[in-house]
Amino acid sequence: MKTNPGNFFEDFHLGQEIVHAVPRTITTGDVALYTGLTGSRFAVPCADSLAQSIGLAQAGGLAQAPIDDLLLFHMVFGRTVADISLNAIANLGYANCKFGVPAFPGDTVSARSSVIGLKENSNGESGVVYVHSVGRNQRQEVVLDYVRWVMVRKRDRTSPAPEAKVPILPGEVAASDFVLPTGLDLTRYDAALIGQPHLWDDYEIGERIDHVDGMTLEESDHMTATRLYQNNAKVHFNQHSEAKGRFGRRLIYGGHIISLARALSFNGLAPAFKILAINGGRHLNPSFAGDTIYAWSEVVDRLVIPGRTDLGALRLSTRATKDHPCVDFPGAKNATADQSTAAAAAANLVLELDYTVLIKRRF
Amino acid sequence: MKTNPGNFFEDFHLGQEIVHAVPRTITTGDVALYTGLTGSRFAVPCADSLAQSIGLAQAGGLAQAPIDDLLLFHMVFGRTVADISLNAIANLGYANCKFGVPAFPGDTVSARSSVIGLKENSNGESGVVYVHSVGRNQRQEVVLDYVRWVMVRKRDRTSPAPEAKVPILPGEVAASDFVLPTGLDLTRYDAALIGQPHLWDDYEIGERIDHVDGMTLEESDHMTATRLYQNNAKVHFNQHSEAKGRFGRRLIYGGHIISLARALSFNGLAPAFKILAINGGRHLNPSFAGDTIYAWSEVVDRLVIPGRTDLGALRLSTRATKDHPCVDFPGAKNATADQSTAAAAAANLVLELDYTVLIKRRF
Amino acid sequence: MKTNPGNFFEDFHLGQEIVHAVPRTITTGDVALYTGLTGSRFAVPCADSLAQSIGLAQAGGLAQAPIDDLLLFHMVFGRTVADISLNAIANLGYANCKFGVPAFPGDTVSARSSVIGLKENSNGESGVVYVHSVGRNQRQEVVLDYVRWVMVRKRDRTSPAPEAKVPILPGEVAASDFVLPTGLDLTRYDAALIGQPHLWDDYEIGERIDHVDGMTLEESDHMTATRLYQNNAKVHFNQHSEAKGRFGRRLIYGGHIISLARALSFNGLAPAFKILAINGGRHLNPSFAGDTIYAWSEVVDRLVIPGRTDLGALRLSTRATKDHPCVDFPGAKNATADQSTAAAAAANLVLELDYTVLIKRRF
Repeated sequence: MKTNPGNFFEDFHLGQEIVHAVPRTITTGDVALYTGLTGSRFAVPCADSLAQSIGLAQAGGLAQAPIDDLLLFHMVFGRTVADISLNAIANLGYANCKFGVPAFPGDTVSARSSVIGLKENSNGESGVVYVHSVGRNQRQEVVLDYVRWVMVRKRDRTSPAPEAKVPILPGEVAASDFVLPTGLDLTRYDAALIGQPHLWDDYEIGERIDHVDGMTLEESDHMTATRLYQNNAKVHFNQHSEAKGRFGRRLIYGGHIISLARALSFNGLAPAFKILAINGGRHLNPSFAGDTIYAWSEVVDRLVIPGRTDLGALRLSTRATKDHPCVDFPGAKNATADQSTAAAAAANLVLELDYTVLIKRRF
Repeated sequence: MKTNPGNFFEDFHLGQEIVHAVPRTITTGDVALYTGLTGSRFAVPCADSLAQSIGLAQAGGLAQAPIDDLLLFHMVFGRTVADISLNAIANLGYANCKFGVPAFPGDTVSARSSVIGLKENSNGESGVVYVHSVGRNQRQEVVLDYVRWVMVRKRDRTSPAPEAKVPILPGEVAASDFVLPTGLDLTRYDAALIGQPHLWDDYEIGERIDHVDGMTLEESDHMTATRLYQNNAKVHFNQHSEAKGRFGRRLIYGGHIISLARALSFNGLAPAFKILAINGGRHLNPSFAGDTIYAWSEVVDRLVIPGRTDLGALRLSTRATKDHPCVDFPGAKNATADQSTAAAAAANLVLELDYTVLIKRRF
Repeated sequence: MKTNPGNFFEDFHLGQEIVHAVPRTITTGDVALYTGLTGSRFAVPCADSLAQSIGLAQAGGLAQAPIDDLLLFHMVFGRTVADISLNAIANLGYANCKFGVPAFPGDTVSARSSVIGLKENSNGESGVVYVHSVGRNQRQEVVLDYVRWVMVRKRDRTSPAPEAKVPILPGEVAASDFVLPTGLDLTRYDAALIGQPHLWDDYEIGERIDHVDGMTLEESDHMTATRLYQNNAKVHFNQHSEAKGRFGRRLIYGGHIISLARALSFNGLAPAFKILAINGGRHLNPSFAGDTIYAWSEVVDRLVIPGRTDLGALRLSTRATKDHPCVDFPGAKNATADQSTAAAAAANLVLELDYTVLIKRRF
């Protein structure tokens, strides 16, 4: 059989190592399309001159700005789909995601995964697969390292269940695991160009920020984004089959929602110029064309970066909703809203993303 | 407050200087997406070899073609939106827009604006703000210089009105203000590659050209274009809120209509290889997804370029319509059509753009 | 008249040579958008490092991967539309299409065509024009060479018919006409990165491969693709006029369907890393937004490449359907399905493409 049917739950075993196909060179073309599809305005990936001014540009001739962290994430993730999640029922979560050395236009990323956990579901029809995936550039430097777990269909209901193993995953990436770009120097940091005056010191733990703006999803946009990443999960592209499926519609790649939430978060978090880590993430509801995505963020923690007084980290929890402005901070842990409002809001929550960003600190 | 609420009318004062955030490196990726969204076929920005042959390519190693003038315009304009027009009710007009040194792939543009005029509306609910915006490249050379005026909401109806000042703006950019690219040499100009044999001498004042073709607008296309420029005006992206708004629909960025009109104008104006200036522009009606844009142009003037016998300038008035082919030149000043036809046509006029282009002159 | 009305059947004469306007520099931006619009995962055009490892990267500094063969095809084809097929009723077929030297980012392609055949239709209202088109890079090396024939409207029903001449076209491109990239060396070929272990030896003549996946067409996607190629045929873009036309809808550029079929064929034909030739192609039904494209392929022949034991060629016939999964191989010459099924399937067949690909051979 020449066609890849995708791996089913039975096809995975603990300790399995998978080399993913089709390395990908990320170019300024990919960057432009990413901007066109998300509208992201975070300054560093947009402006070579600004990246140069803070020591974050490519070494050597072109001195280009680094690739947006989430574009890099999607490119690495895209490599893994054909092997890991082609038969996935759901992408359940992410953890311990660390961004490594920055990627620059012209870098080629490839990915490998190890199976680190397996647990059959009690219904005998599917199971959860935990994989540790690592993305590397053409010099074999790690650009991304993360765990994700997906619910995968069994090929045959009667296949015996493997011994269950659920990996113990850290609730957050520790500050000692952050990979800071070498050469980063904020002495020429210009808040007027970054888009907002606030620094690490200005964000309070527990502070909530409504990002205000909304972005309506179109079929063409999410499909183009997902094709750009060469993520070929079937549910995103085929209306003819999805019309008979669970939702009657094409399901939007959860990563596109993450990108929109991050892009919307510029309004209030513009100084958070780089993502260091994704501590965890959950897609709470599916998104479809026609939905309008809103987002808000809570400052969960302020972390000191060992050895740096010019930089700090913020741990953020960003929630995205559909068709629900976030002025009431839906999904907040200690919501003051009454229960019915909370329940209604929950129905519209599509994303909870727990991540850590790098930000300038006041001397 | 971390979130940018945008400036309201009260937030502007005469002489105010605004440094806009987020410089932007323009790349061949942006160029490709611009071509994909507009279908523009003007030859110089498409072909490095052709740009080289007329001395209009980047100096140095890559010798790339210049960025399309309107792509550059949108990139500079996009910088200014978050500060100038986030709370705009309408973008009323442009004037005295001069294109400076050409921009090339890899150039980073940034923008600053000065407030040069203010006038509260008699309803006390809004006012008109006039700004002079200047776009510069990473060497601080001016790439674009223009005035625009927008109607901006007041935060508070009871705020006192500022002293009214309406700047005196030239009706057109004078030939002496044109910035000609250095090194431009048309001795190797090849009309067969440019797409049309006509030269400056062949266009008559008063001549009208129906550009024939039509282009239907899609939500995804105009949103992608506007996101590419990082123009974040809310009305373009959020169907959830616009459903309850003035039009019930997302409004299309007027600049996208300008780009489509220019792209359509290739059919008849292919030799107009560079825009020198925009003398003025008005959006006469809003455009929405589903509308089909048509365009026609009138040659308003033929200008001699001081010191050049190989090049001339044409002052053009291009009108765009929706769902109305331009065979009858709708909106022409001295229309021969009877009044009812004219009125009907006016309802479909979406753009009047008065601009000046560079074109080869017969020796 | 400044506007190009397009050539009508009467405007063509045997032996006519046409220099097409607007050369085009193909960039990594075009490559990114092509990936975003098709989702193609063929490895060589995606990864500079992989292209380098098999000797297929650009000579000199950047060592970039070559442009996808079909992107190159569309770029050359796009040059020819304004002169050849603006008034076409139908694009009837392609033959003898040979890919020449590879194109790399930064190369500028231009095109010329010769009229090699003419035949008026018996209805006196149109005729068939055969053109031989050649695309060249900026060094005048041939990158593409093909024949196509189109049915073109007559300007005037009463114009006399030209002497009919139908060129004799080869049914397939001979192996001796294949242009192999110089320097190609598969000793470091890595099947794990290419995405499938099978080699030339593993594909059997007569073998059928269902490519399984489907891709739903959106207006924005096909228009963006076609604008990217600067193919300005009117039927693809103007809903206002097409609403009153033959189909009531915008017709999708047949080349977009070819690209989707090729992209889908990765699932089963991943090792077919380069197209050498298109022997023939027919669009059997029009495609519209909302259709979901599926594809399957048959191995028609296995060809030995003279002088190479490391490489072979496969002649393939790929069929694409709309809204019809290809598990039953619709359109197969010796279909086992009963006649009514075949007829039903035929109604959904949109493409038959006969082409030859390069693939590694087992030593």
